[in-house]
Amino acid sequence: MSNDNAPAAAGHGRRPLLRRTVLGASALLLAQGAARPGAAQGDPLPSWNAGATKQAIVDFVTRVTSPGSREFVDIPQRIACFDNDGTLWTEQPIYFQVIFAMDRVKAQAERHPEWKTLEPFRWVLEGDRAALAAMGEKGILQIMAATHAGMTTEEFTATVVEWIAAARHPRFDRPYTDLVYQPMIELLAFLRAHHFKTFIVSGGGIDFMRPWTDRTYGIPPEQVVGSSGVTKYEMPSPDKPVLVKEAKVEFIDDGPGKPEGINRFIGRRPIFSFGNSDGDQQMLEWTAAGAGARFMGLVHHTDAVREYAYDRNSPVGRLDKAWNEAIRRHWALADMKNDWKVIYPFELK
Amino acid sequence: MSNDNAPAAAGHGRRPLLRRTVLGASALLLAQGAARPGAAQGDPLPSWNAGATKQAIVDFVTRVTSPGSREFVDIPQRIACFDNDGTLWTEQPIYFQVIFAMDRVKAQAERHPEWKTLEPFRWVLEGDRAALAAMGEKGILQIMAATHAGMTTEEFTATVVEWIAAARHPRFDRPYTDLVYQPMIELLAFLRAHHFKTFIVSGGGIDFMRPWTDRTYGIPPEQVVGSSGVTKYEMPSPDKPVLVKEAKVEFIDDGPGKPEGINRFIGRRPIFSFGNSDGDQQMLEWTAAGAGARFMGLVHHTDAVREYAYDRNSPVGRLDKAWNEAIRRHWALADMKNDWKVIYPFELK
Repeated sequence: MSNDNAPAAAGHGRRPLLRRTVLGASALLLAQGAARPGAAQGDPLPSWNAGATKQAIVDFVTRVTSPGSREFVDIPQRIACFDNDGTLWTEQPIYFQVIFAMDRVKAQAERHPEWKTLEPFRWVLEGDRAALAAMGEKGILQIMAATHAGMTTEEFTATVVEWIAAARHPRFDRPYTDLVYQPMIELLAFLRAHHFKTFIVSGGGIDFMRPWTDRTYGIPPEQVVGSSGVTKYEMPSPDKPVLVKEAKVEFIDDGPGKPEGINRFIGRRPIFSFGNSDGDQQMLEWTAAGAGARFMGLVHHTDAVREYAYDRNSPVGRLDKAWNEAIRRHWALADMKNDWKVIYPFELK
Repeated sequence: MSNDNAPAAAGHGRRPLLRRTVLGASALLLAQGAARPGAAQGDPLPSWNAGATKQAIVDFVTRVTSPGSREFVDIPQRIACFDNDGTLWTEQPIYFQVIFAMDRVKAQAERHPEWKTLEPFRWVLEGDRAALAAMGEKGILQIMAATHAGMTTEEFTATVVEWIAAARHPRFDRPYTDLVYQPMIELLAFLRAHHFKTFIVSGGGIDFMRPWTDRTYGIPPEQVVGSSGVTKYEMPSPDKPVLVKEAKVEFIDDGPGKPEGINRFIGRRPIFSFGNSDGDQQMLEWTAAGAGARFMGLVHHTDAVREYAYDRNSPVGRLDKAWNEAIRRHWALADMKNDWKVIYPFELK
């Protein structure tokens, strides 16, 4: 799926559920001549309850894509950026990439006896969840550097693919890629059916996300922006070059890093962006500061029964300052409990 | 043009010349069911003389895009990477971005009296072309840092747009964007008509290229990989964020940096790449090292009459080691004098 602006091809090679959604949106688009999405025949966002947030999304897309609209936006400028953790999939009890890294720490612990007394590795090996949840960005990066380096990019990709296929979430006992948000999958498909190019702009590792974002979200590797370590080109044997992942941070795609990453990787300012935490505030500010119609949205995790409920005091995915900004500036808030009919795709089965 | 995989839309908003080529290739594609490009009806590469290089290009594209072909490549994997300077446009007497930077040095000289005695700035102000041509990457980067920083990204883009519109090449007395290679424009269109996604992977500055690559090559900003400086997100006044370009190199997309940049920005290995100098060798090595059918090509500047003739001893665009590799590994060599019927689009008028 390198081409996410082509509705006719958008279901190719995708999970059945996503394919159904994409084709549904495409059929709707074709039937209505792209003029009035959601106005008749079928609901492009069936997992969203009727309400202000859903209405704001549909209204925005209609305004910027309807020919003749005063706020019409040309197709190349229809750039939509989504945070990943907590926006497209669950991020509790801790970012899934951290669980991946902790699993890698455990797998490599025999070769690193010093980790038994060295924090944050000690916390991983002792299973100290409270310490891990509170360790913040710095500790996460230490664990990531130790587990995401010293191998080739292809070797790392293989460990991610293997882990994503085998690992299961502690509460839901399901593969992590089952814990994506059905309403957001529908939103991605709805935007693409209206010729938006959808990007992930995540604090997560770019090499961790790329092996599975296409299959899971229909977002190809070249539309994933994320944090990264330095890679080094080497030629260990003739005509067999490799890229070696080094234990050195290259870029943190979080907070102010998000607009910086958008500028570096995409080179256009999005007209639509969606996040869920304070780390997304600058991305939404940057989106808002462009000319013309804009959409800024935040997922608010309000559903402790079906998912998790957390905001101002959560060490993971804290939503505090960005929430204040959203209220002050009238950005959309997707209240998970009230706005989402279902959370996960498996609820539909 | 965010969507360069859609032939039907590929001519939108483009220069007439490019549009004609793209639509020609698209019509060909449609007429022939994408099966045998160039086999009949029209020549998709009319500015290329018949010969081994043209044949190798057409054969490769046919093999990887014909349904049922043993070497068929799925559309998302059809990634093609092109160097810019010396591959898509002229790079003599020195990289055009360096001329832009020198023009900026002159424009700012009054505010920097120290430049009168400080190299390489002194060379610019004195017009010492020999010293400038020989100063190498380091001197170029010093000038770039001094002229590409201390302003917002939007301010910088405005200076590039203004310069590209007004500046003229010293020998040809034409805008620099007139000095693109017609055969390569046709090649880009030919690849896109066969659902390749085309990227620039250049040692040039990413912020310097993006304002004009879409109009000139049909390559949108998000498909441009290049060298960059650090940008910093700032909020000088409420709700009006800016990205400030700092005088600090972030990434040099040259030599081993090219596969590193491809991995970081695109996240897929190209199956087709084209360069012209030693700085492209690693990109071609990286392309060659993937599984399945591969195409690696180099432009050889052999035409002193219509363009320039230079290779092993040129301080700009040196082709020495990569040439040896091309011979050893049977990579395609586009001999400008013999393979190209015309060099520049304006020759067709």
